[in-house]
Amino acid sequence: MSDQLIAPVSAQEPPYYAVVFTSVKRERDSGYGETAERMEELVKEIPGYLGMDQAGSPGGLAITVGYFRDEDAINEWRTDLEHRAAQKRGRAEWYERYTLHVAKVERSHGFQREPG
Amino acid sequence: MSDQLIAPVSAQEPPYYAVVFTSVKRERDSGYGETAERMEELVKEIPGYLGMDQAGSPGGLAITVGYFRDEDAINEWRTDLEHRAAQKRGRAEWYERYTLHVAKVERSHGFQREPG
Repeated sequence: MSDQLIAPVSAQEPPYYAVVFTSVKRERDSGYGETAERMEELVKEIPGYLGMDQAGSPGGLAITVGYFRDEDAINEWRTDLEHRAAQKRGRAEWYERYTLHVAKVERSHGFQREPG
Repeated sequence: MSDQLIAPVSAQEPPYYAVVFTSVKRERDSGYGETAERMEELVKEIPGYLGMDQAGSPGGLAITVGYFRDEDAINEWRTDLEHRAAQKRGRAEWYERYTLHVAKVERSHGFQREPG
């Protein structure tokens, strides 16, 4: 992250889907980091995956938004066996609470400051 | 924030809308904090406003997700005169870049760890 350009995922051509995952982790989260990294790698293999935005600070609310072309792509990701095992472990060990919203994007736009 | 329970907005009964705003601010952001606080107060007055989740860390990507019952509520907020002035100032002064996705939530669910 540190030497990459920090940039949100660009506006895509609608329709597409945004999966909004808002979460609060427990203090003990052994193994979470490795699994999160693995999931970030794995989701890139899903056809129709468009990108992901993540923000949060330690001890606070974290928000992850995954963008997918269609419901098939979301379903493929949701039911991926390794992802399902991670979801299960998340409920058993890592998360204090979370909310998941699956939403169809109807419009979007972006802004980029002109250089100089 | 510090002495409040940190909790994401709960799953609502669909349909409702999620407005996902992902942004990177410039280093100079004089006046941003006051305006952001004012906007958080102002949006609560919009009929059909359901809540907001925010996450981010200084110098990184920030994500704000606002939840609204319907498009009328979003339009009322989008065209609010004080909010429009803030949007304009955001593009002129505060943001390096941002993306806005307006999305209709089709399904949602939540998880809350059992106490103890």
